[in-house]
Amino acid sequence: MQLFFYQYELQLKHQFTLSSSSRKSTPAVMTEITHEGVTGYGEASMPPYLNENYETAIKFLSKINLSQFKDPFLTEDILEYFDSIDKGNFAVKASVDIALHDLIGKLTALPLYKMWGLNKFNAPNTSFTIGIDTPDIIKQKIDEASSFKILKIKLGSENDKKIIETIREITDVPICVDVNQGWNNKDFALDMINWLSDKNILFVEQPLPKELMKESAWLKEKSPLPIIADEAVQTSSDILKIRDLYHGINIKLMKCGGLRTAREMIYLAKELGLKVMIGCMTETSCAVSAAAQLSPLCHWADLDGNLLIKNDLFDGMKIIDGKITLNDLPGIGIEKKFIS
Amino acid sequence: MQLFFYQYELQLKHQFTLSSSSRKSTPAVMTEITHEGVTGYGEASMPPYLNENYETAIKFLSKINLSQFKDPFLTEDILEYFDSIDKGNFAVKASVDIALHDLIGKLTALPLYKMWGLNKFNAPNTSFTIGIDTPDIIKQKIDEASSFKILKIKLGSENDKKIIETIREITDVPICVDVNQGWNNKDFALDMINWLSDKNILFVEQPLPKELMKESAWLKEKSPLPIIADEAVQTSSDILKIRDLYHGINIKLMKCGGLRTAREMIYLAKELGLKVMIGCMTETSCAVSAAAQLSPLCHWADLDGNLLIKNDLFDGMKIIDGKITLNDLPGIGIEKKFIS
Repeated sequence: MQLFFYQYELQLKHQFTLSSSSRKSTPAVMTEITHEGVTGYGEASMPPYLNENYETAIKFLSKINLSQFKDPFLTEDILEYFDSIDKGNFAVKASVDIALHDLIGKLTALPLYKMWGLNKFNAPNTSFTIGIDTPDIIKQKIDEASSFKILKIKLGSENDKKIIETIREITDVPICVDVNQGWNNKDFALDMINWLSDKNILFVEQPLPKELMKESAWLKEKSPLPIIADEAVQTSSDILKIRDLYHGINIKLMKCGGLRTAREMIYLAKELGLKVMIGCMTETSCAVSAAAQLSPLCHWADLDGNLLIKNDLFDGMKIIDGKITLNDLPGIGIEKKFIS
Repeated sequence: MQLFFYQYELQLKHQFTLSSSSRKSTPAVMTEITHEGVTGYGEASMPPYLNENYETAIKFLSKINLSQFKDPFLTEDILEYFDSIDKGNFAVKASVDIALHDLIGKLTALPLYKMWGLNKFNAPNTSFTIGIDTPDIIKQKIDEASSFKILKIKLGSENDKKIIETIREITDVPICVDVNQGWNNKDFALDMINWLSDKNILFVEQPLPKELMKESAWLKEKSPLPIIADEAVQTSSDILKIRDLYHGINIKLMKCGGLRTAREMIYLAKELGLKVMIGCMTETSCAVSAAAQLSPLCHWADLDGNLLIKNDLFDGMKIIDGKITLNDLPGIGIEKKFIS
């Protein structure tokens, strides 16, 4: 087996504003693992708040020696080897985890969802994310998103109510609210959630800073809407810590280190009675299609990252009438685009 | 897909005595799932304490309509359908779960351990079980078991110390002690465990009745040896209940309903910091070889059930120098024997 990788800057269609930051591009590293002429593709998308970047990713990938593994099917051994190289580095670990899974799928001529026994027709609708913006831009973005059955709205600014009211003037489509830790006290958060509760909101993601654990437990108890953990959950061990603080979790490959861990997290969370959402960063169709393979196991999905960039490198999972639609290609189900 | 099944009585080589019962045979039901000319094999072994029998198994299997599923790869849907037919019935559910997994492996031409990314060389040694008996018979059985690197000794009778002393006169091989809930108070259990603690004992399985939860938590805290749950753990939800009462769990396909649940239980238990042992009932090489596919994920294995019967129907996983040795056959790795 051999590993190749290169830097790639993901160009965003719209400037992307959260409660904490704003940016026009996201650094990514693309990986390829080749075995006997077959290539699996992977990707690390590294938004700044993950504390990974080109330098850390290249440093990590440079330490990998895949020639020691003769059999790519030894995924447990190989993925444990990746884990052993360094702590953290979850996005870049996800990139090699995805590439390895893509390779295995191609070597067995099976889509991953099929290797995992999943029914692709059980894949959920995805939400489409609208960043924090002026009412006019929000209106324009919602027009562009008219084929989606669920919108994800970023709140956590001064204008939260105005944003929701603006959207509700245009559409009644169900909304997921994502606060990205932007409401910093529990009473304000509960007031907001109560205000949102009759506005066809599916859930509220990470309303409080993740450190406010007691307040989050209080909010879970009082909230009329499900509260989903995002920043508060990175890997499996976090699920046990937050099970009494949230109603569900948002799993992202770039946060948890890849498909293997994500899959384990889904089963663990469901066993604990938590709802599961699968999300993404701004990513090409590579990482988004990888995550989509797991989506039939999830209650909700927010897999629109590839739609937010201008320079996708792959064709893969499609959103058709708002629904995640998996193809029958082996592995993660992608083909490289020929870009002129 | 089509399902076939038949009754089969497993004839034991030796009368088998636990702290609670004694018997010479075990009822089993053998299953086969066929799809486009390929057949997957499964088995339900039903020792009396599981509360399943020919009648319940046949009743359950008669309700299954597999013709509704055109694609055997939809294992999540199919296994959920099996679960939906009736509560309980874990052994017979395991029989169809095993047959389905065997079928999928054969359709993809991959051993299950390979589909699951496991390294077959990580499979552990198995213990070999010695039932409660007279010192002379025990000596004879230990002679027969000389190729095993670990013995499993059933305790819970009047003669516990005598049994261990008899064995220790003959061999220093590491021993797993299985009490099958046979010590009924915590102080006696702790005294026994303290007495055992300098006798090269790996762990003590189910020393107290599973209902004694407080006492089990107390015992876990005091015990110099790891305490493993067997009767106290059936499926995933039990693991969460007993995580503070035991150091580890014994997973058996017949208890939990098959390979899918067993695999989830292994990951869940390890995530919770519990040790994992994979065990079996008296079974043919069918169910034992199925469990063996998961053994590379486990700390300990007790997969000797096929060696305890006279009328095995299959060739499968072998024990070589005490170690579980998986072959490269697809699925659960078995071939039907031609018995005259």
